[in-house]
Amino acid sequence: MSELQFPPESTWRPLLELALAEDLGPGDVTSRVSIPQGVRVRARIEAREALVVCGLPLVEAVFRAVDPNLRVDRQTEDGKHVAAGTPLLLIEGPVHGILSGERLALNFLGHLSGVATTTHRYVEAVSGTGTQIVDTRKTLPGFRMLDKYAVLAGGGVNHRIGLFDGILLKDNHIAAAGSVGAAVGNARAQAPANLRVQCEVESLDAAREAWEAGADMLLLDNRTPDEIREIIAACPKELVLEASGGITLENVRAYAETGVHRVSIGALTHSAKNVDVALEIEGDGGAG
Amino acid sequence: MSELQFPPESTWRPLLELALAEDLGPGDVTSRVSIPQGVRVRARIEAREALVVCGLPLVEAVFRAVDPNLRVDRQTEDGKHVAAGTPLLLIEGPVHGILSGERLALNFLGHLSGVATTTHRYVEAVSGTGTQIVDTRKTLPGFRMLDKYAVLAGGGVNHRIGLFDGILLKDNHIAAAGSVGAAVGNARAQAPANLRVQCEVESLDAAREAWEAGADMLLLDNRTPDEIREIIAACPKELVLEASGGITLENVRAYAETGVHRVSIGALTHSAKNVDVALEIEGDGGAG
Amino acid sequence: MSELQFPPESTWRPLLELALAEDLGPGDVTSRVSIPQGVRVRARIEAREALVVCGLPLVEAVFRAVDPNLRVDRQTEDGKHVAAGTPLLLIEGPVHGILSGERLALNFLGHLSGVATTTHRYVEAVSGTGTQIVDTRKTLPGFRMLDKYAVLAGGGVNHRIGLFDGILLKDNHIAAAGSVGAAVGNARAQAPANLRVQCEVESLDAAREAWEAGADMLLLDNRTPDEIREIIAACPKELVLEASGGITLENVRAYAETGVHRVSIGALTHSAKNVDVALEIEGDGGAG
Amino acid sequence: MSELQFPPESTWRPLLELALAEDLGPGDVTSRVSIPQGVRVRARIEAREALVVCGLPLVEAVFRAVDPNLRVDRQTEDGKHVAAGTPLLLIEGPVHGILSGERLALNFLGHLSGVATTTHRYVEAVSGTGTQIVDTRKTLPGFRMLDKYAVLAGGGVNHRIGLFDGILLKDNHIAAAGSVGAAVGNARAQAPANLRVQCEVESLDAAREAWEAGADMLLLDNRTPDEIREIIAACPKELVLEASGGITLENVRAYAETGVHRVSIGALTHSAKNVDVALEIEGDGGAG
Amino acid sequence: MSELQFPPESTWRPLLELALAEDLGPGDVTSRVSIPQGVRVRARIEAREALVVCGLPLVEAVFRAVDPNLRVDRQTEDGKHVAAGTPLLLIEGPVHGILSGERLALNFLGHLSGVATTTHRYVEAVSGTGTQIVDTRKTLPGFRMLDKYAVLAGGGVNHRIGLFDGILLKDNHIAAAGSVGAAVGNARAQAPANLRVQCEVESLDAAREAWEAGADMLLLDNRTPDEIREIIAACPKELVLEASGGITLENVRAYAETGVHRVSIGALTHSAKNVDVALEIEGDGGAG
Amino acid sequence: MSELQFPPESTWRPLLELALAEDLGPGDVTSRVSIPQGVRVRARIEAREALVVCGLPLVEAVFRAVDPNLRVDRQTEDGKHVAAGTPLLLIEGPVHGILSGERLALNFLGHLSGVATTTHRYVEAVSGTGTQIVDTRKTLPGFRMLDKYAVLAGGGVNHRIGLFDGILLKDNHIAAAGSVGAAVGNARAQAPANLRVQCEVESLDAAREAWEAGADMLLLDNRTPDEIREIIAACPKELVLEASGGITLENVRAYAETGVHRVSIGALTHSAKNVDVALEIEGDGGAG
Repeated sequence: MSELQFPPESTWRPLLELALAEDLGPGDVTSRVSIPQGVRVRARIEAREALVVCGLPLVEAVFRAVDPNLRVDRQTEDGKHVAAGTPLLLIEGPVHGILSGERLALNFLGHLSGVATTTHRYVEAVSGTGTQIVDTRKTLPGFRMLDKYAVLAGGGVNHRIGLFDGILLKDNHIAAAGSVGAAVGNARAQAPANLRVQCEVESLDAAREAWEAGADMLLLDNRTPDEIREIIAACPKELVLEASGGITLENVRAYAETGVHRVSIGALTHSAKNVDVALEIEGDGGAG
Repeated sequence: MSELQFPPESTWRPLLELALAEDLGPGDVTSRVSIPQGVRVRARIEAREALVVCGLPLVEAVFRAVDPNLRVDRQTEDGKHVAAGTPLLLIEGPVHGILSGERLALNFLGHLSGVATTTHRYVEAVSGTGTQIVDTRKTLPGFRMLDKYAVLAGGGVNHRIGLFDGILLKDNHIAAAGSVGAAVGNARAQAPANLRVQCEVESLDAAREAWEAGADMLLLDNRTPDEIREIIAACPKELVLEASGGITLENVRAYAETGVHRVSIGALTHSAKNVDVALEIEGDGGAG
Repeated sequence: MSELQFPPESTWRPLLELALAEDLGPGDVTSRVSIPQGVRVRARIEAREALVVCGLPLVEAVFRAVDPNLRVDRQTEDGKHVAAGTPLLLIEGPVHGILSGERLALNFLGHLSGVATTTHRYVEAVSGTGTQIVDTRKTLPGFRMLDKYAVLAGGGVNHRIGLFDGILLKDNHIAAAGSVGAAVGNARAQAPANLRVQCEVESLDAAREAWEAGADMLLLDNRTPDEIREIIAACPKELVLEASGGITLENVRAYAETGVHRVSIGALTHSAKNVDVALEIEGDGGAG
Repeated sequence: MSELQFPPESTWRPLLELALAEDLGPGDVTSRVSIPQGVRVRARIEAREALVVCGLPLVEAVFRAVDPNLRVDRQTEDGKHVAAGTPLLLIEGPVHGILSGERLALNFLGHLSGVATTTHRYVEAVSGTGTQIVDTRKTLPGFRMLDKYAVLAGGGVNHRIGLFDGILLKDNHIAAAGSVGAAVGNARAQAPANLRVQCEVESLDAAREAWEAGADMLLLDNRTPDEIREIIAACPKELVLEASGGITLENVRAYAETGVHRVSIGALTHSAKNVDVALEIEGDGGAG
Repeated sequence: MSELQFPPESTWRPLLELALAEDLGPGDVTSRVSIPQGVRVRARIEAREALVVCGLPLVEAVFRAVDPNLRVDRQTEDGKHVAAGTPLLLIEGPVHGILSGERLALNFLGHLSGVATTTHRYVEAVSGTGTQIVDTRKTLPGFRMLDKYAVLAGGGVNHRIGLFDGILLKDNHIAAAGSVGAAVGNARAQAPANLRVQCEVESLDAAREAWEAGADMLLLDNRTPDEIREIIAACPKELVLEASGGITLENVRAYAETGVHRVSIGALTHSAKNVDVALEIEGDGGAG
Repeated sequence: MSELQFPPESTWRPLLELALAEDLGPGDVTSRVSIPQGVRVRARIEAREALVVCGLPLVEAVFRAVDPNLRVDRQTEDGKHVAAGTPLLLIEGPVHGILSGERLALNFLGHLSGVATTTHRYVEAVSGTGTQIVDTRKTLPGFRMLDKYAVLAGGGVNHRIGLFDGILLKDNHIAAAGSVGAAVGNARAQAPANLRVQCEVESLDAAREAWEAGADMLLLDNRTPDEIREIIAACPKELVLEASGGITLENVRAYAETGVHRVSIGALTHSAKNVDVALEIEGDGGAG
């Protein structure tokens, strides 16, 4: 498996700043009126259920942004499977900073670990089949690289990042070009050489038209496992085949067992349930 | 019920721009290589399941940002309950712009309508009890005002927006102050006059300590309906009481029937399933 | 008294950057053409008149922004009353950086200490009466949190921060709602539970209408001390009463002696005279 | 007199946006809970005292930023002297927008008209002498171009804009260079050809040293009118002479009568009292 | 040939704003002191030498940013070959705006048309051979999409946009992986399915190692035409071959005649001479 | 000669960030799929031809922005003349960061050193004449201060920075004012005292009209050396004279020998050829 590499800061820093501003705004009035300045504590973020960890570097960045005097120590790594009760990070320093960053840190961690954990369930469901679990562009707005990183953390594989780094001809492109063959042909002629051409097809005939026009990959949308099997049997070996549409944890193995190379699932990123993570103040952080 | 008012542009414009940039980046290569410029079409965004609509003004803003020449006409309003198949918006103009904005528009609409629809289910579940369904700060990072607006669209009520416009003393503040009474007392003495003081309590004794020290509102966290009933019976009439923690669609009515004023639920915003919405190209948009 | 806590960086960093850019722009041409690089000096910022200090963290941030190699040491703290001639900060390092930041540092310090000093005069004028001196939204554009912090430094109390964290029904809201009672009633029904409702009134009758409809606080605008006394006598004890309009250093005590809880004064922030502060180069800062 | 030209938008737009965000933030809660959407009104901003108008284009920009549906019509122009009661602008449209922008519009208008009005008093005080009233870099942080524009509106003249467009050798530069002559000499040798060289001097001897080394302008700081007269008598005709330091409305004419070309006064911009301006809702703005 | 489509605004708007700010800053002092406001004129931007036009949409954006009241009419289109003296755009409106935008408009137009014109010379030089002229990442910092668009306007073809949308294994990647085969193998195994794998090679042996490991494209760096011919003869038909390094207008045809598919040339974008374009005021723009 | 001082960070930081974002975007896919994380190396940037170095501080800033763990050590200084093969900087640390920043660092360094080297050639060409080589506003958009710094590094002299810090009356200003005399007269009357007035003239008569109206400097545009000699002979000694238009490396000495004070040349910045610089990985950077 590829190593897990956190996305470049420029892809998530603006979201972090927006998110901090919307929560903290002109300041944490509760802490200001109830806790004296200078109180230092140790706190622990822990898993409250079994989960695949994702988002630790972001949590560190949240606390650093809130107060550079906070010290944050990871207790595990992104991509690890942990049991309920596992400590994920320790934070030490002024309590005002910890409380100001707590909610945002947990919101990020709960969401990203939720995506990773969901992805992992799909990966488990197809284990042994060789089929890859692939994400889509149905990520939360502003979370593209974070959500895709969480899919990797859960053992999945990324599809193109955005509209700019992959060619995927869908029904609307085909309609505008007039036919599958014309759409693929145009794309082959004009596409940057570094990009493969993928085409969505809904029948074996369309699939044949696509590969004959030079498609490198097919997206088999809303097909049954049997229909997919039929297309696989007919098409050239070097074509990459991807199934999508209506695929759930219940039926994903049936799709994988067709021998399709990839299954792409929007729900990995757009509807993952947050996992339960919490911050506990452990005690006095010592003299400041 | 209060009228639904879309949040100020400054609260969502930066997220929209981030989200557009991460998807469109240096440009939509698929459309560029497969569809000639200047092709105009009419498209329709429609509900694929029954849902509470939320996010139409944002969808309009997405398409305006992508191409000011697109014309977008709403077919319904945020907060409406619609059946599967209902058209939500019509868009007309250059197909390149429509395809560039499609995914982001649907990602926003699917998420916000998901929050509204989820909220509505909770509101229905407590109907007739007078209890309010209230959100939390467990919103998606960057979506604070949008998620809270979606809660309103679903018939819910907003808690404080962020750390700055409400005083909510939680276990960590109480621990730092030494006792419930001390925390509430400090807050009363120092809080801006325009803000009420709410305190989290876990027992009747703590509740009593809080109201005697001047709390205006209590947050009854992780209490059973019976425990809540006991506290309600004992406490002064003018106190606002809110239940939270472990409340689900299954048990929310039991909580509401205790007579508690408000029930706050993080899952409204952090784990709402996207609802299914789609964009269909209808045909030629006329000469361009 | 509440501890003084400098506002979050996100509330003043953009103003600092604007202000630095408008003064420094493409560079300090005078220093460039007259002083060789690498010259290091020690400088001192001092009070030239008696004043209440305010803005030291901002001065530090200015010099750090100009040149991270400058070392700045505070000689006192915000909120302190100092005599003419008191050193406020020492700065040591490359003279180019000191001269580039000097004017902006003094402009901030002179203004904020001016607000603090003015506020302090009002606080002194009402000493012993228990009446609070409160600010308004008549702050300098861009200075909301800084100006409000300076009011705290001078011993005053903050009103709501902005339009978002307090409900204050003024004549225009009342006119639009039809009556004081209707305006307060609407607000009570729809306001977030964490916010109190304040209503501006201009007569005892209006005051009564407001509190009967559920107002928590009244703003008695442009009333004489005698009129205020009459309202105080008639109204319920738990109502918070605030006087405003035409209140000066000369008449503020007469208002305070009515027993009104708060007096709010726009001139604290919109018309405070700068106090006189200056930067002196003391000598060689040693080898660089 | 030079025509009055409002500064480029890029010099004030960021301040306007900061200022709007700090006041409006996530929204105007009072209006939301007390006034239905869609109510339209006509409003009038008027002078409450005699003043020199300054800031109308900024007021328009504020209301446009708040709600592009507002229509704003100027009733006068920047630089005009108006009596108390004079209407300055009419605004028509949705009342929510008007109330959201009101305070910021008045804060800008009151401050800038305050600077213009103060400047005008100095200009009047020296009328007939030919001496110019000149501003300094002691402007409010973030307001450099706005404050300098207000000085023009009041009949004053601008000094350099910032550190980048004028050479002014002050005591610190002279100390670093070793002598007045050395500082001026260095500057002459290295200065961009398009910039004149001005030098601060505190005696006739220093003045002579400066002009002999090639200074184009002198700044006579903290000199009495008699000392200034002595320097004027001795120095070459083509030198531009500027007095500064401790100059007030009371003594400015004595300085002007020395024949000095310019008098620069920091208090024009850093300590101008706001003038009184107010917004009145006039009535129904018609069907919306 | 593919149609020419101007890059998305988000890829060049920030550069345009930086560039305008650095030139206009606090305002155009020359125009302010020499030309009264309100003067309207008609102006013409024209070619002063034969050139391939590129950058008209950017010129329009510059003038719109400077003054929305300016009317700009294109007289030709990007990608057209024009003779010296050809008018490119007409601009009409307030002269202050025209003069404020003139230099930036010409700087953009001169550079981009310079890139297009240079590219066109290379395209002409290889005409009839079927070899494509391809750009590199050696674009001017901040100009990535603009420079690549100018290459298209000149008849060239774009390589990958940046580090994110194409896989190009260079000497450093090969060294880190240990061998050509290992580098290509790793990349094949881990690369997103939508991206082809290109590998730089310096010999036939390396080329063979690359294609056997699964490379889709080779970059033949610093090879002579004869060496390239030898590799072409030996390698599989479906491989895309690109030559680079030391290729000039003089020797490019010799490379093309080897039958190599693409030739990539950094000098297209990093060292193109500006072409000569100028703005002429034609006369009175009519009443304003 | 004046010391070389790198422009303030605020003048180039935004361009650096744009440029990094356009190249790196969502990440370096090639390095990610071919090189494991944590590999550390030493690299060297070196000159591949004789050149005047310019841009080292910017290269350092690029690598710091990409990865704060990279250590960068300069081997020379901006403004130095170096031979082919000279090492310019050493970089040590994680190879991923080095490869991510490499192209941008070289793009900046190659361009700025190109400007410095070109400028130096002009300076050499006029050596001994006393004439200065001066830049123009024909800089690359976004590069104003960087390009002007590179001119200084090459031994040239800067003209005004932008429209805001120098008065240069050109044909359009003269046309609008009605005559050279009127334009200069208006400018003299209204110009800030700190700015000299320069006027473009195309004949001796115009030159005389300009200086009689008070111009401090003349720009002799598109004149032959003989015409310039004639004007120099006639005009007052204190006037600064500048030649421009059609001046090349071939004819610049002929202009300089007229005795003109300055020669300004747009091609220094708008058409300088990049110089050849390259980054070489030297080997293992040691344990990380």
